[in-house]
Amino acid sequence: MYSDLTLRRNIGLNFHPETGPEIIVWAPHARSLVLEVEGKADVALKKLNYGIWHASCPDVSPGDRYMLNINGKHSFPDPASLMQPTGVHEASSAIDLNEIRKIHMRQWKGITPRELIIYELHVGTFTPEGTFKALTHKLKYLKELGVTAIEIMPIATFPGGRNWGYDGVFPFAVQPTYGGPFEFAHLVRACHQQEIAVILDVVYNHLGPEGNYLNAFGPSFTSKYQTPWGDAINFDDIYSDGVRNYFLENAMMWLRDFHVDGLRLDAVHAIKDFSPEHFVQELSLNVQKLNEEVGANHFLISENDLNDTRFIRPIEKGGYGVAAQWVDEWHHALHALITGEKVGYYEDFGRLQDLVKSFNSAYVYDGVYSPHRKRIFGTSTDDLPGDKFVVFTQNHDQVGNRMKGERLSKMVDFETLKLAAGAMFASPYIPMLFMGEEYAEDSPFLYFISHSDQHLVEQVRKGRRREFREFIRNGGPPDPAAADTFKKSKLKWDFNKNGKKKQMLEYYKQLISLHRELPLMQPGRRENIRAREGIDGKTIVLTRKTGKEILVAVMNFSQDEVTEPLTGWDKAHPGLLINSASHKWGGPALDEEIPFSTDGKKLNVHLYPRSIIIFIV
Amino acid sequence: MYSDLTLRRNIGLNFHPETGPEIIVWAPHARSLVLEVEGKADVALKKLNYGIWHASCPDVSPGDRYMLNINGKHSFPDPASLMQPTGVHEASSAIDLNEIRKIHMRQWKGITPRELIIYELHVGTFTPEGTFKALTHKLKYLKELGVTAIEIMPIATFPGGRNWGYDGVFPFAVQPTYGGPFEFAHLVRACHQQEIAVILDVVYNHLGPEGNYLNAFGPSFTSKYQTPWGDAINFDDIYSDGVRNYFLENAMMWLRDFHVDGLRLDAVHAIKDFSPEHFVQELSLNVQKLNEEVGANHFLISENDLNDTRFIRPIEKGGYGVAAQWVDEWHHALHALITGEKVGYYEDFGRLQDLVKSFNSAYVYDGVYSPHRKRIFGTSTDDLPGDKFVVFTQNHDQVGNRMKGERLSKMVDFETLKLAAGAMFASPYIPMLFMGEEYAEDSPFLYFISHSDQHLVEQVRKGRRREFREFIRNGGPPDPAAADTFKKSKLKWDFNKNGKKKQMLEYYKQLISLHRELPLMQPGRRENIRAREGIDGKTIVLTRKTGKEILVAVMNFSQDEVTEPLTGWDKAHPGLLINSASHKWGGPALDEEIPFSTDGKKLNVHLYPRSIIIFIV
Repeated sequence: MYSDLTLRRNIGLNFHPETGPEIIVWAPHARSLVLEVEGKADVALKKLNYGIWHASCPDVSPGDRYMLNINGKHSFPDPASLMQPTGVHEASSAIDLNEIRKIHMRQWKGITPRELIIYELHVGTFTPEGTFKALTHKLKYLKELGVTAIEIMPIATFPGGRNWGYDGVFPFAVQPTYGGPFEFAHLVRACHQQEIAVILDVVYNHLGPEGNYLNAFGPSFTSKYQTPWGDAINFDDIYSDGVRNYFLENAMMWLRDFHVDGLRLDAVHAIKDFSPEHFVQELSLNVQKLNEEVGANHFLISENDLNDTRFIRPIEKGGYGVAAQWVDEWHHALHALITGEKVGYYEDFGRLQDLVKSFNSAYVYDGVYSPHRKRIFGTSTDDLPGDKFVVFTQNHDQVGNRMKGERLSKMVDFETLKLAAGAMFASPYIPMLFMGEEYAEDSPFLYFISHSDQHLVEQVRKGRRREFREFIRNGGPPDPAAADTFKKSKLKWDFNKNGKKKQMLEYYKQLISLHRELPLMQPGRRENIRAREGIDGKTIVLTRKTGKEILVAVMNFSQDEVTEPLTGWDKAHPGLLINSASHKWGGPALDEEIPFSTDGKKLNVHLYPRSIIIFIV
Repeated sequence: MYSDLTLRRNIGLNFHPETGPEIIVWAPHARSLVLEVEGKADVALKKLNYGIWHASCPDVSPGDRYMLNINGKHSFPDPASLMQPTGVHEASSAIDLNEIRKIHMRQWKGITPRELIIYELHVGTFTPEGTFKALTHKLKYLKELGVTAIEIMPIATFPGGRNWGYDGVFPFAVQPTYGGPFEFAHLVRACHQQEIAVILDVVYNHLGPEGNYLNAFGPSFTSKYQTPWGDAINFDDIYSDGVRNYFLENAMMWLRDFHVDGLRLDAVHAIKDFSPEHFVQELSLNVQKLNEEVGANHFLISENDLNDTRFIRPIEKGGYGVAAQWVDEWHHALHALITGEKVGYYEDFGRLQDLVKSFNSAYVYDGVYSPHRKRIFGTSTDDLPGDKFVVFTQNHDQVGNRMKGERLSKMVDFETLKLAAGAMFASPYIPMLFMGEEYAEDSPFLYFISHSDQHLVEQVRKGRRREFREFIRNGGPPDPAAADTFKKSKLKWDFNKNGKKKQMLEYYKQLISLHRELPLMQPGRRENIRAREGIDGKTIVLTRKTGKEILVAVMNFSQDEVTEPLTGWDKAHPGLLINSASHKWGGPALDEEIPFSTDGKKLNVHLYPRSIIIFIV
């Protein structure tokens, strides 16, 4: 595995094992291009075909700082820089990717999407130190929790030390304040040693507003398409081959050189590409090819606000070959139901039947009219299996885009939190946790930045205040540029000092353990799944079948005690798997209570308010 | 066929056979909407769901003039108007579509794409009168010529009386100076009586710059996407359902009510739609449904500058279900080869092998780098059959977008014209003629407009001069707004006064006759086709097989006499179908000349300069 060192990064400064150091730059409009290495002689690049420039640079050693001078006028850091040790505006640092590759744990075979239990985390706020190294010390905790993969929010270098990561401007350079590329490679190795897969969040739909020098090198953006961040990245206009290559090579680097297992593609709906082969499709083909070459299991997961199955359908059926996609609508249906919120996109949700539909069809809007979007939206998910969809009760966006960054733990009561978690793990989809939710973390996850461009900082501040202008009487949003806003967002790790938090952690462990042990709780084939509204519009009954076994999850979303009658199942011998209301998880149900009864015709399931019971018959 | 009168136009003013006159308007932002009928009482419309307004208007009669008043402020013509008798800025006229429907020739069954021999024409310049009625008198001529379909350049109402049609602003209203809706319906009937199908060119990617009141009614355009005409039509942004419905209904009207056989969709690459179901796909599904309901053979043909087969692949394979597409690249390859032109997009063409590739693969750029587009362009056409592609030696764009509007007849000699025509009919694709080419018409087809907005006229003039600024020393482009520019573009119909033109007409008739009689000359299965470069880089040899029969076309693109040796065919008995150099078509070959010889190993084919020989072995 990964033995073929001729697999080569087709951009940037690389130390080729046979031919030595070389630099490759895409700059179709440049008239001259010079590699300026601190303390060493300049090297002029030669223009090849297709806007590509190349030079051998035998004198360059790892650690050397360098810039690229265009037309004898301006010097810029390398767009494909592997390290920006002193920030986004200064010289790049030469890194030998071969040394990165050597760190890999060779025995690791990867996992399949069906095995995924994802834990989304932000490196800077996951630990007090906010580094890869500190994260490594938490892997034992994650292993005991039982998750099978961590998903790391973007680590491409952004301005300053505090950022969610979506303002990254050097896609190839690991954020230095997190520890840089070698620490990241060691983290991946440590994860694999714990049999935890690593998914990396990558942003191929925009670059951050500060330190983006891509346009100096070539037409990296196109005004043909507008995105929330301005002109779209140029994936299909003239000169787009160089841009596509840039992001394809980036994806390949994470998988091939850093041995990351999967990539989470941010907002693929903003990757505007009308080519016959969409960029995401081309990327999938590259991943397939890599997997075949090295015998690995790399995969892509997409964030997609289009309810369009073409991204997750197989390539041979005209799809883009992505392994799975996030289903925001499962979250929205659950969130609106348990919080009663109706603002913004939640106006499209809130009815029990929305969540029922999402259990059955993943998408709530699958070709029906969306009042919020003011158009018919989405398409049918047909018979796509459950492991094509990732669900969550919260994530960085759903928490962080709130003015006060409140987690679900600040919005609903303890019993409802457990109901929500149970619903997620009983669903036929891939579950994903947001760091800390497993112990009902109550610190916020706020929006924070640390740009050095003060004009930009003021713009971001104003934008935040405008976004939440109706709530200014409540104090308004915290200052995104304040160090304290970042600090407040760090996890407290205080479950050992708080009985409730400890109970939640144990409850999550139990759910995860069940999920890992029982195939019936894992992402499933759609024809075996049926969700329906239960009694009095208060409950959802979800059944999942394999052979003679049926998994049943009954969820009570009301504030009342409910008896759910299951007709025809009077002869069944229900085997209780978990009752979220149990005393041991801090709930009202006594240990000796049996939540089932039968009256000769029906199996009755007794539920406490806001609780879930999962059993097998 | 077409008996079900409940098939209903879901927009505009209609005379419903059962419920009477009604008006339906899409205007999601309007606060009030009033139908103002000249000489009759106002009728207030009522807002229904999804931005749709409706009213019954029993007092309205066909022929009534009406406007729509929005918010009690401004009155506009109806965007779905069926008639604008006094131009684009004034009142609409009520038309009873049921009366249009009655005109249809019921016995007509339509034709399949494989049977198409298309004749593209512009109503205004095809005849001296420039009307549907005058066109009807030419159908006998077209029938004798042998074409099986006419393709009519857009007839949606545009400002003034002189326009190619791509400045149309009332997609539902037939241009009054051509004769209006009833004359058009009678033309369709007359065509069908001559067994000629009717294809109508429709523009769903932009509206003209004068008289476009669509935005007054709702967000019909979106700044998310930019096209050569500015903001794209809103096919996937908020409120897009109303816009999609507008164009879907338009397409259905032409097919269902006017009984047009097929629609030629202008520039589908500028229909920007990232919905799960692309507008063109939804349109295809609507056409399929109509065909099933009424047992007809309606089809779509697309103009597509993306070399993307998704438009013409079947819907069940993830395609958009379009019957066939124009292949500009076949034209470009041929044109650059025979004229030597290298400016603009012709820089990507000019080699014999480009035309060879287009004979074999339709697309020349099918995933390879295009120097003109400065990117890798296109995708493989795989095994899509020949009837998926329409080819031509010239069309309205290729002629009219030249500064002087020169037809091919003004650019190459008589023998080369016949070679080009032979190449088209021998190709495995659907042939298309541009009006007049069959008799080597020599009048130009110039760019002409007649907007009433004088500022706009000046802009167009300036744009034209800018486009051809390098040629101003040659007199520059003719004034597009001058009546004379339009007049000069009319066909001369002078083949009876000119022996060469008459010979060309007879040659075309012979080619068309062969094409209709010989299945081997019709659009074919790709695996049976092989084109290759012949001797000395001067010729192309095209072979097409069915069973034991082989059709051979040998084309000499050089200015030399050539003997093409076909190895292994010495025993073959070639049956000559046509020799473009024959004396009867005005060529140098004597009637008694036999263009074949054999030397025991090879069949030798003797070609005059710039000639084509087609035979069967």
